[in-house]
Amino acid sequence: MDHDALEATAREVMSPAAYDYVAGGSDDEITLAENIAAWRRVRLLPHVLNDVSTVSHWSTLLGADMGAPILIAPMATQRLAHDEGERAMARGAARTRTVMVVSTMATFTLEDIAAAAPEGIRWFQFYVHRDRGLSADLVRRAEAAGYGAVVLTVDVPVLSNRRREAEHHFELPDGMTVANLDTSLESHHGSGLAEYTNAAFDPGITPDDVGWIKSLVDLPVVVKGVLRPDDAVRAVDGGADAVIVSNHGGRQMDGAVASADALPAVADAIGGRVPLLVDGGIRGGNDVLKALAFGASAVLVGRPLYWALAAGGEDGVAAYLEEVQTELARAMALCGVRDLGEIDRSLVAG
Amino acid sequence: MDHDALEATAREVMSPAAYDYVAGGSDDEITLAENIAAWRRVRLLPHVLNDVSTVSHWSTLLGADMGAPILIAPMATQRLAHDEGERAMARGAARTRTVMVVSTMATFTLEDIAAAAPEGIRWFQFYVHRDRGLSADLVRRAEAAGYGAVVLTVDVPVLSNRRREAEHHFELPDGMTVANLDTSLESHHGSGLAEYTNAAFDPGITPDDVGWIKSLVDLPVVVKGVLRPDDAVRAVDGGADAVIVSNHGGRQMDGAVASADALPAVADAIGGRVPLLVDGGIRGGNDVLKALAFGASAVLVGRPLYWALAAGGEDGVAAYLEEVQTELARAMALCGVRDLGEIDRSLVAG
Amino acid sequence: MDHDALEATAREVMSPAAYDYVAGGSDDEITLAENIAAWRRVRLLPHVLNDVSTVSHWSTLLGADMGAPILIAPMATQRLAHDEGERAMARGAARTRTVMVVSTMATFTLEDIAAAAPEGIRWFQFYVHRDRGLSADLVRRAEAAGYGAVVLTVDVPVLSNRRREAEHHFELPDGMTVANLDTSLESHHGSGLAEYTNAAFDPGITPDDVGWIKSLVDLPVVVKGVLRPDDAVRAVDGGADAVIVSNHGGRQMDGAVASADALPAVADAIGGRVPLLVDGGIRGGNDVLKALAFGASAVLVGRPLYWALAAGGEDGVAAYLEEVQTELARAMALCGVRDLGEIDRSLVAG
Amino acid sequence: MDHDALEATAREVMSPAAYDYVAGGSDDEITLAENIAAWRRVRLLPHVLNDVSTVSHWSTLLGADMGAPILIAPMATQRLAHDEGERAMARGAARTRTVMVVSTMATFTLEDIAAAAPEGIRWFQFYVHRDRGLSADLVRRAEAAGYGAVVLTVDVPVLSNRRREAEHHFELPDGMTVANLDTSLESHHGSGLAEYTNAAFDPGITPDDVGWIKSLVDLPVVVKGVLRPDDAVRAVDGGADAVIVSNHGGRQMDGAVASADALPAVADAIGGRVPLLVDGGIRGGNDVLKALAFGASAVLVGRPLYWALAAGGEDGVAAYLEEVQTELARAMALCGVRDLGEIDRSLVAG
Repeated sequence: MDHDALEATAREVMSPAAYDYVAGGSDDEITLAENIAAWRRVRLLPHVLNDVSTVSHWSTLLGADMGAPILIAPMATQRLAHDEGERAMARGAARTRTVMVVSTMATFTLEDIAAAAPEGIRWFQFYVHRDRGLSADLVRRAEAAGYGAVVLTVDVPVLSNRRREAEHHFELPDGMTVANLDTSLESHHGSGLAEYTNAAFDPGITPDDVGWIKSLVDLPVVVKGVLRPDDAVRAVDGGADAVIVSNHGGRQMDGAVASADALPAVADAIGGRVPLLVDGGIRGGNDVLKALAFGASAVLVGRPLYWALAAGGEDGVAAYLEEVQTELARAMALCGVRDLGEIDRSLVAG
Repeated sequence: MDHDALEATAREVMSPAAYDYVAGGSDDEITLAENIAAWRRVRLLPHVLNDVSTVSHWSTLLGADMGAPILIAPMATQRLAHDEGERAMARGAARTRTVMVVSTMATFTLEDIAAAAPEGIRWFQFYVHRDRGLSADLVRRAEAAGYGAVVLTVDVPVLSNRRREAEHHFELPDGMTVANLDTSLESHHGSGLAEYTNAAFDPGITPDDVGWIKSLVDLPVVVKGVLRPDDAVRAVDGGADAVIVSNHGGRQMDGAVASADALPAVADAIGGRVPLLVDGGIRGGNDVLKALAFGASAVLVGRPLYWALAAGGEDGVAAYLEEVQTELARAMALCGVRDLGEIDRSLVAG
Repeated sequence: MDHDALEATAREVMSPAAYDYVAGGSDDEITLAENIAAWRRVRLLPHVLNDVSTVSHWSTLLGADMGAPILIAPMATQRLAHDEGERAMARGAARTRTVMVVSTMATFTLEDIAAAAPEGIRWFQFYVHRDRGLSADLVRRAEAAGYGAVVLTVDVPVLSNRRREAEHHFELPDGMTVANLDTSLESHHGSGLAEYTNAAFDPGITPDDVGWIKSLVDLPVVVKGVLRPDDAVRAVDGGADAVIVSNHGGRQMDGAVASADALPAVADAIGGRVPLLVDGGIRGGNDVLKALAFGASAVLVGRPLYWALAAGGEDGVAAYLEEVQTELARAMALCGVRDLGEIDRSLVAG
Repeated sequence: MDHDALEATAREVMSPAAYDYVAGGSDDEITLAENIAAWRRVRLLPHVLNDVSTVSHWSTLLGADMGAPILIAPMATQRLAHDEGERAMARGAARTRTVMVVSTMATFTLEDIAAAAPEGIRWFQFYVHRDRGLSADLVRRAEAAGYGAVVLTVDVPVLSNRRREAEHHFELPDGMTVANLDTSLESHHGSGLAEYTNAAFDPGITPDDVGWIKSLVDLPVVVKGVLRPDDAVRAVDGGADAVIVSNHGGRQMDGAVASADALPAVADAIGGRVPLLVDGGIRGGNDVLKALAFGASAVLVGRPLYWALAAGGEDGVAAYLEEVQTELARAMALCGVRDLGEIDRSLVAG
């Protein structure tokens, strides 16, 4: 996968404000850069002399049968990339049996997105709003629309400072809204997203909220945004059915540890009690294999799919996902493993 | 905070000699660069799933109630940045409940600076001169003018070699003096500051001088310029009421360890006997949080405030201080801590 | 040896597609770069005060008397560098008493290459094809033609993704074939080499195949492409007469550990049961000495000899090999060792 | 000291061949660069709160009273920098009470150099030639001319490959000779120095040669060119009166450990039995202090003095030496030490 070429194509078709919104990180963008660098620093110790005539990356997670242990990370406002936005993403995902995690901040309603690809698998990414009635309504709508899990994002008690957004006075263009919430993120003095978030999101999320969600819907709850072993254990003790190691793609606390560097200790702390996922900086199949070797059950890929959507719509998304699955299969063969169960930490050097 | 943009603005309004005097370091400027790089290398392990609905960075230090654990580092000759110099800095500090540490080498007298913002909190940075009568007079004047502490700088037994100063034959412009000492730092063959310092400052400061200052005034004494655990203990044993880990902003011993790298061991050695502060390379609220996590009670910020003064006078100073307080609050929320007492070393990665 | 100058000369005389085929690596070319960087990072601790009036690098390996512990790595399709291709390489090798490892993928038949330099020493690099009859025929032909060993490559269960090859739609020019296999590697949608390899090579190679080869021919078998200590032990337990630490020159699993970094642990695991060789990133005599210090009995040099062949044909190859032998002798003298037996791990720093 | 500016000035007045001869290193010049980088990486932990009203760097070594623990490293053919060559160097050295180590390969005879500055202190750097009669004659001449020690270089059993010399076909210009040996280093096919050295120097030097020299003259013998603790012990056991940690300024075994990195372990092995010196990459007084902190009794400075000679002759040499002594005094004061005896390893971090 030549990720840089893909991003360059996307940049041409997106507005500068939209491109910077997706590409950027917080503050000095230290973590943004580290997320990618950390995966690249990992060195592999491939096995040879194993029969890899057949390699399988079929995977099951929280009841979902997936083509590969690769999910589409929740990303907001995908109509900034393509007119069909999340609907096109959903169709591309379904064609490759990929779980799409749909953002609360989507530019189509969660029902519209579900209807766009009824055969697909979707999870609902959820920001708890201060308005608990609105919040409860969101997850109930997701359940009703067939979503398979609630992904509770816990690393946005406040929005970070994202200079690129502020410089562009980022807000949605005319005619585009965050459809689930009916807002266009109007900017009054800087990033409209920051203004909306800090007014609307609940900064008081605790492990008890996992239980609160479970009281509302009969869906597994995945806690997204954990970097510390102790927090991962608290989430699981609070009822989380899975945990995602994430620093929000380098978009929240700048200087936070890279996902790849955080993953091993969290994996050790969880010890297999629930599935562990990771996102941040994963750019191809080799990175996926490294994440699995560190103990993840699956990964989420974000920006590359935004670029694929911008560059090619539904077809672009499907092509990217097929390519990254091919890359993973090739990496598995080159590392001498036949299925996901044979991937362990001995594949990564010291 | 976009520090680079702030510095660029200041550079436009200052003379090259003045800019280089403030921006530069000693010899090869190794420590100057390392001070910034070292904070950037620190990786955070933010907490999530904590209720951060309210975050407070209110702080108390040596009897001063401060808006945040952030002080203005002592910096000489601030009229090089702005006509109102230290008077404008004092007013900006007072507006944000920030302790200003006023330099012996100010371009207004310490009394003038106090009078410029009577409601503010000020500490007096003190160089012991070979002329002990003059020295005693300085600290007595500071006490009389309401200064809340004496900050004894101990890392200038001689002045370092600062090439930029020497190249500019640095001295004060016509009509500007070091007001407390009535000198314009005339250059005879290189840096006028070096000539003055090496002639006037006492190179024989020991822990006994802490006691000597206490015999003169009824003020706490803060020892500034410590990088070694053993020296920190000697300072406290000698009566210091607080210690500042500092390498003089990379302006004295070049090759000295970066402040961020020196801090943890000094904190361990002091073990909470007195408050520990740190300066050098701190450029925004995220760095402040890192310093507190390593065991500092507060930080001092230097050059950025010089640039803020040059770029915007009193308003520039106040705006910078408000912004960095906002950054600290945001960093605390993003790291899941509600008040300064919840910040500990577990926030920084091994 | 000024390797960069040599490569630049070769680049001028080769087609862009041919140059990129040889120079390139897989995916992001991380391992390609690391192979070279890793040798450069090794620091030597030379002996002095030893009498090095005479220095000898004469070496014996699997019955071959060699001018130095330096072999020519197997490289495909050498007519891309020079009209006489492998025949010229064989003649240059023979002139310096160097073992040439002839690739299955040569552009002359293995018999032609043997006939070009009857006095030379050659080993046959062997890819096991899915067609076991064809495979058996190849090694029997090699034995009949006087080859001294079979070098079984085990790190190509599938071909990696090599972007440069794919962009060029790499295939052999008109009139050139992989002579042993009678294919010109036709490209249908990308790299013709990848298409051929993935269709033809057996992805199920295990240690049992070492025994299978030994049942076919009376030749030592060298297993090439091992990076892990456990795999090296499995190869030796399966009957391998020597092992080559290699990541295929950064051309197979990208992100795999550099050869220099993999070598010490493999050497420790083998413990001298069989000779250990290494390739990847070795660019001159100093690197050879580092490899021997880490425990290798000999090294293989690849790309530099391709460039030497392109730049100067048989004479270029001989000149390169003479030069690298001279460099090794000089490095030995400068490190205070008189023969290969005096080289040990104490020569490399911590 | 702005070393880069000094070197740039020298480069203007020297021929390209002469400049490259002095500036260059061997092979890929890895060790050349590392020598400088290694000192820069060392981080200091300065003392404060010590009375440094008086600082002294007066030093005694093998009976020589020196202005500072800084010697002029042996460097060949100094008339390439300045018409007066070693004679000007000797006068500049004498003016600052600095030991000049005169090279066997000087462009004036050792007697001429002694006569140029009778008040100075000189040691004689000695290459043992295969012609032992010539060799014995050289050291006897040095003793007769008042030299205070013999510095036996042990890291040139053969000359390294120095590409810059070979490209220039380095030899001495018309009218210039290696006066002690009456050769102009004629080039026949590359570096004339390499041709001379490899023909003339004895590659069989062992610790026994220390005793041999002592049988010839009544002078202390200093062994120069040691990087390993075991070799340092062998040298001392063989009678060496001092040892110099050196990699020949990055001019012999490329990839050898940097001097700064080799020094601590050698110092530990010697344990004070004899004085230990170091050269390689030292560019100013801060580096001198770092070397002393690691356990050296003194340092040798090479290339900077060649540049000073080229840029300013005798005056340039004296000015450089005065400046570096000033730098050392300043570094000592800034590190809180009053004399050389107070410098210990606690001054360097980690």
